[in-house]
Amino acid sequence: MARIVMKFGGTSVADLDRIRNAAKRVKAEYDQGHEIAVAVSAMAGETNRLVDFVTNANKLHDAREYDVVVSSGEQVTSGLMALTLQEMGLPARSWLAWQIPIQTDDVHGKARIQAIETENMIERFADRQIAVVAGFQGISPDRRVTTLGRGGSDTSAVALAAALEADRCDIYTDVDGVYTSDPRIVTKARKLDRITYEEMLEMASQGAKVLQTRSVELAMKAGVRLQVLSSFREEPGTLVVDEDEIVEHQIVSGIAYSRDEAKISLSGVSDKPGVAAGIFGPLSEANVNVDMIVQSMAADGQRTDMTFTVGKADFDRAMEVLNGVKDDVGCNDVLSDQNVVKISVIGVGMRSHAGVAQVMFRTLAEKGINIQVISTSEIKISVLVAEEYTELALRALHTAYGLDTD
Amino acid sequence: MARIVMKFGGTSVADLDRIRNAAKRVKAEYDQGHEIAVAVSAMAGETNRLVDFVTNANKLHDAREYDVVVSSGEQVTSGLMALTLQEMGLPARSWLAWQIPIQTDDVHGKARIQAIETENMIERFADRQIAVVAGFQGISPDRRVTTLGRGGSDTSAVALAAALEADRCDIYTDVDGVYTSDPRIVTKARKLDRITYEEMLEMASQGAKVLQTRSVELAMKAGVRLQVLSSFREEPGTLVVDEDEIVEHQIVSGIAYSRDEAKISLSGVSDKPGVAAGIFGPLSEANVNVDMIVQSMAADGQRTDMTFTVGKADFDRAMEVLNGVKDDVGCNDVLSDQNVVKISVIGVGMRSHAGVAQVMFRTLAEKGINIQVISTSEIKISVLVAEEYTELALRALHTAYGLDTD
Repeated sequence: MARIVMKFGGTSVADLDRIRNAAKRVKAEYDQGHEIAVAVSAMAGETNRLVDFVTNANKLHDAREYDVVVSSGEQVTSGLMALTLQEMGLPARSWLAWQIPIQTDDVHGKARIQAIETENMIERFADRQIAVVAGFQGISPDRRVTTLGRGGSDTSAVALAAALEADRCDIYTDVDGVYTSDPRIVTKARKLDRITYEEMLEMASQGAKVLQTRSVELAMKAGVRLQVLSSFREEPGTLVVDEDEIVEHQIVSGIAYSRDEAKISLSGVSDKPGVAAGIFGPLSEANVNVDMIVQSMAADGQRTDMTFTVGKADFDRAMEVLNGVKDDVGCNDVLSDQNVVKISVIGVGMRSHAGVAQVMFRTLAEKGINIQVISTSEIKISVLVAEEYTELALRALHTAYGLDTD
Repeated sequence: MARIVMKFGGTSVADLDRIRNAAKRVKAEYDQGHEIAVAVSAMAGETNRLVDFVTNANKLHDAREYDVVVSSGEQVTSGLMALTLQEMGLPARSWLAWQIPIQTDDVHGKARIQAIETENMIERFADRQIAVVAGFQGISPDRRVTTLGRGGSDTSAVALAAALEADRCDIYTDVDGVYTSDPRIVTKARKLDRITYEEMLEMASQGAKVLQTRSVELAMKAGVRLQVLSSFREEPGTLVVDEDEIVEHQIVSGIAYSRDEAKISLSGVSDKPGVAAGIFGPLSEANVNVDMIVQSMAADGQRTDMTFTVGKADFDRAMEVLNGVKDDVGCNDVLSDQNVVKISVIGVGMRSHAGVAQVMFRTLAEKGINIQVISTSEIKISVLVAEEYTELALRALHTAYGLDTD
């Protein structure tokens, strides 16, 4: 007997037929005697419909009211899932965040879970009741509805698994696992049987959309065994596990990409102490997340060029801030380019193998692809290239690192 | 300075434009310095959409989960109304039933309000904040979501007005008041400036759909000054008030009709004590509401015919019950007719004026309309006639009681 959290994403509960299909997966686990908590997203398209309502009602909306409106989608699915399980003869009840409660901070629209009360649910497990939990939502210290940000139902599921000390957290989705690269582009991409938390974290934050980054962080921290699998096909998915659970490592596990980047260059910045702070301080105050940063000396040795990337959503705000501080940092010109893509090669094997970066640079050079910015971490190398090379670069790197299926 | 509850029905908040229009009505009252609580229904069509989900997911649905799903409609509108008011520069916040809380009993699907905590709202009135309350919903003793039955937002508004000791409860709807009869049928119908609680109660329970019956009961009991008015036209509506606030009474105030009736006749029932209990007891146990009842002696003086009406929704269930008890009560035959309409003439003036019934019977006879069943109360006479005469009967009675506009 195990305790399992099963999470179904929007496409897996897009309509009543799919909810029924998901409920069958729940029944299969339940019938084996397991204790089950189900976490559900809103039906596909529903959150967008609700967000549109909010932004059309009030452009500069109050995030507290945004949360009231948008969280209703998961409420509906939780009730429908409970009803569908009951229709199959299984005892089930829905739980809204305020009923459990799932306590969060008060950062509306992207709240963080602080505590989950599980006593009631666990008592009912003993009576063989299935708990159906509305994902994505929480309750703030002053009893307002909060939401956890896009993809937040993954985090709900993992936090629930951690609080319930569940044996497993299964994330059912419309793909059947984590791939070495995006299979829509790289047809030779392979499904991974296992991936480490660290790699998954890099994959998620470098653009692979299969799991919300925060949910992976949380799973790693709490040691929740995560599985990503398809709600439509009955086959094993990808297990996200500790490094020591993986016997044979690939040097590179996957290649991710993100088109959500914009490049900004400040040319001719005075090369003196405090200049970087003069640029990135105001950006940070304006809530602009800066990603890759390179600084290079200008030809005259007196001035420097500063290049970095920001998310496309923050681009306009970033440019506004920079035009304001431009003169203070002695910058000649602010240049920008939104037609860029960040490509990242990820693998824990990099820690112990040299030459991984060299393979990347050589491969891209052979295809005539110019690298604009480079950044690295312990288990990742990212490069910024012109967007038009996305597919070419992904396929070439996938082959170069020996990831292609036969 | 007054304290006002303003309630907007589904058609008044059907889309963002209409919500904006409703918000303007709120602003007009707010700008006069009044304290405002707004109660909102789900956007028109939304509740039906959600009910369809539920009934398609599980025909014999768990009413607790029905309430979770269906109550989400009002949640969405409450957030959108708060956002729209904020957009107009007014401080507003949404309140869900569990946040207030609005305590109900645990009769899911048609719960009754037991208590409303108003301290928090009243504190915020002092800071000039508008409270936007999700109508139709409550919270049961064991912290599950409840709903108050169709039209329940009217009841939410009146109960809120009572708890807040509001000076007025304005019900904004898609008609501009209470009419002497249905204006879609009786083109000479007039809008009433005032109507008594008792009359309104009869009108509502006899088929006029402008207010939920329970909301009128509650308003009468708590002495809430109710106004029914249009959210689209800026003109006074109909005030629902105590009898002593109406100086000049019409004898008859309105003529209502209900097509939601089915007639059932049991012929040749043994005429002995306990027979009525043998029929109506089992119907009551099956939750069938019986309305008009007449009993008449059969020609042989030994047996009796029993005729009564039930709501069309209960008809199949009633027939099933009756076919079960038929033999026990010595009944020959169960006959039924669903093509009937109940027409009711309503007015507190009847108490002191004779001959009101006579006008009704003579008028219908002159038009060749056969009366099948008659029932009366202190301020109402109802007759059951063949459905095809609905329009003819309404118009003739409207004229006969001097209600036509010039």
